Amino acid sequence: MKLSQRIESMQQSPIRKLVPIAEAAKKKGKKVYHLNIGQPDIPTPDTFFDAVKNFDEKVLAYTFSEGIPQLIDSFINYYKKYDIHFDKDEILITNGGSEALLFSLVAICEHGDEILIPEPFYTNYNGFGNLAGVKVVPVTTKAEEGFHLPKKEDILKLITPKTKAIVLSNPGNPTGVVYSKEEVYMLKDIAKENNLFILADEVYREFVYDGFEYISFGHLKDIADRVVIIDSISKRYSACGARIGSIASKNKELISQILKLCQSRLCVATIEQIGAAALINVPENYFTEVVEEYKKRRDIVYNSLNEIDGVICEKPNGAFYVIAKLPVENAEDFVVWLLRDFDVDNETIMMAPAEGFYATEGLGRDEVRISYVLNEHDLAKSMNIIKEGLKVYNNKK
Amino acid sequence: MKLSQRIESMQQSPIRKLVPIAEAAKKKGKKVYHLNIGQPDIPTPDTFFDAVKNFDEKVLAYTFSEGIPQLIDSFINYYKKYDIHFDKDEILITNGGSEALLFSLVAICEHGDEILIPEPFYTNYNGFGNLAGVKVVPVTTKAEEGFHLPKKEDILKLITPKTKAIVLSNPGNPTGVVYSKEEVYMLKDIAKENNLFILADEVYREFVYDGFEYISFGHLKDIADRVVIIDSISKRYSACGARIGSIASKNKELISQILKLCQSRLCVATIEQIGAAALINVPENYFTEVVEEYKKRRDIVYNSLNEIDGVICEKPNGAFYVIAKLPVENAEDFVVWLLRDFDVDNETIMMAPAEGFYATEGLGRDEVRISYVLNEHDLAKSMNIIKEGLKVYNNKK
Repeated sequence: MKLSQRIESMQQSPIRKLVPIAEAAKKKGKKVYHLNIGQPDIPTPDTFFDAVKNFDEKVLAYTFSEGIPQLIDSFINYYKKYDIHFDKDEILITNGGSEALLFSLVAICEHGDEILIPEPFYTNYNGFGNLAGVKVVPVTTKAEEGFHLPKKEDILKLITPKTKAIVLSNPGNPTGVVYSKEEVYMLKDIAKENNLFILADEVYREFVYDGFEYISFGHLKDIADRVVIIDSISKRYSACGARIGSIASKNKELISQILKLCQSRLCVATIEQIGAAALINVPENYFTEVVEEYKKRRDIVYNSLNEIDGVICEKPNGAFYVIAKLPVENAEDFVVWLLRDFDVDNETIMMAPAEGFYATEGLGRDEVRISYVLNEHDLAKSMNIIKEGLKVYNNKK
Repeated sequence: MKLSQRIESMQQSPIRKLVPIAEAAKKKGKKVYHLNIGQPDIPTPDTFFDAVKNFDEKVLAYTFSEGIPQLIDSFINYYKKYDIHFDKDEILITNGGSEALLFSLVAICEHGDEILIPEPFYTNYNGFGNLAGVKVVPVTTKAEEGFHLPKKEDILKLITPKTKAIVLSNPGNPTGVVYSKEEVYMLKDIAKENNLFILADEVYREFVYDGFEYISFGHLKDIADRVVIIDSISKRYSACGARIGSIASKNKELISQILKLCQSRLCVATIEQIGAAALINVPENYFTEVVEEYKKRRDIVYNSLNEIDGVICEKPNGAFYVIAKLPVENAEDFVVWLLRDFDVDNETIMMAPAEGFYATEGLGRDEVRISYVLNEHDLAKSMNIIKEGLKVYNNKK
């Protein structure tokens, strides 16, 4: 039976496709440090689990397609702390940030329309673009420039009559870049002048280091009608498995149209919504501690990488990822080699080859994405494994 | 800001769109019996909640994109009881039957391809068709014939080179029809001769009455490569809010391709998966009792409807819905009138106007779907409200 071209041409996740090789390494008794996936090791706040345990309805019934009221309120109150203001009819609860992005794309774009995305980008944007039948047009950014945006004129060149939106994550996955005020305002001007929506994936909003001034697209009042905030509790509260996300926009018509898509899948898992709603009660110092911890980890990774000859890595200001350019021709080959043929005291690491985060053919072939989601001790060991690995790998040729 | 044509042309759910009118009636102090939505009142088995309460991981982490192993095993064991046999790599866990159908459509159809669906059909099939960019071609069935399928030659006429699959629910939502052995075999022959997939939504598999012989599409070994079983725990275990569904097929290549879509949304809510996995331990007599209860309800609804002058309703053998043709010109007007202007002892009912379940313009305008998800006492009262309501409604003109 023939399957569709659109599914066959879909790429496998660069984050997950090498998992079988890692599993084989583990079977041989090697310890593998997972720097390939953005799965934090930070405990999920007990508040979540307590609320789940207190659920005592007799029937686990469908709930509102837009989300349960207490969870929508919880998002409203969360945003207030960032001086971002949404009403009840401006927020929809979704199955993670994933569904939020998919639904937004479908509501904004016809099949065959285009969206601009700074590359390297979160690889699943490709999957959602594919599902929505929307063409991803990459805005290339470079490791040497810390993945900051190119000049306005270079972005304008990519806009066609089919371009409907700019999609971005800020702070950035997989780059860790946090856009400066100038960059955010440049995107605002581009959106305004060219009648584009901005789909801002801000799931790493908390993870900004070094006192860098973070500007949410939710702060730009004069383009509020064209800004859609894609969000999720996954990273913020280390609750990836809850699959709770949201769409927020001051464009009420957009929200009411997307509600039809929400109705078609009925509702989001009820018990996880109840857990998520309780998270608004997590004390503020939770974030302070978590962010401090990630900053320490970022420093270990960044400093260690910069001590290795030939590695290029600008200091990222946010999220918990860094993309490093390695002194190898093909980073995927190196990642596979580390898993199969290398170890330091029977330990090795897994990273995500970065080529899959680019839409432009050939870019990122010598780059890897490293998630600093492990403790400092394991990260230090992991960085040493890269250093020693590169020595052996480059000498053996 | 202009939104997409595809979202604007999407219809509102006929099940949910009159909710504001019902809410207004309730605000005026009227009691409203909800026969519009398939939300059972049967308690969810404690097994589910116990498993949820026993969850004791510290981090609510991403889990496998294909579903947690114990839940896949649970589905495998469940199917065995029906003499349907799947391996681990032939099942994927999804966000309800909804996502299962969407992903299957994307994997099988290109944008612009066609699928055949017996109408009236579950209205959200339209939503998923829209999301997947697939055209729904209705195979019309009639109230007078108990919504059984037309002759083979009438179905063959609808097939074009773009037709990729037949989608159906069996037992049927919204009709309650259970297809006979002859009908199932006819569809099998059509699929075989025309190289079509069959996407069989069998979420009401348990709900078959009167000793009617139920044949799952999972039983048809000679077309196993083209059968996809769409499933869900929602109705079977009265766990609609869990949003746990599945895709199962002996076509391993199809499953491995759909896994890429599953990876793009990472995973299904973890805690609800754990609850769902435990349901395999629910004793068999749970179903016996539940099915006996629904049969009683079906009898009340069917018998009462047939005592009303001018109502046409053939006895449905499955699910918990019935579509009735009423002696009114426009059933939606009647439903609205019942909510706004009629009551018996300050009580009224809400039904789903059936027009929205048809793709063919103009069909179903005098029909309603009734979900018999309330207890016998409330159902008897509800049927009396229809009877009395029709008398007043038809005299007032």
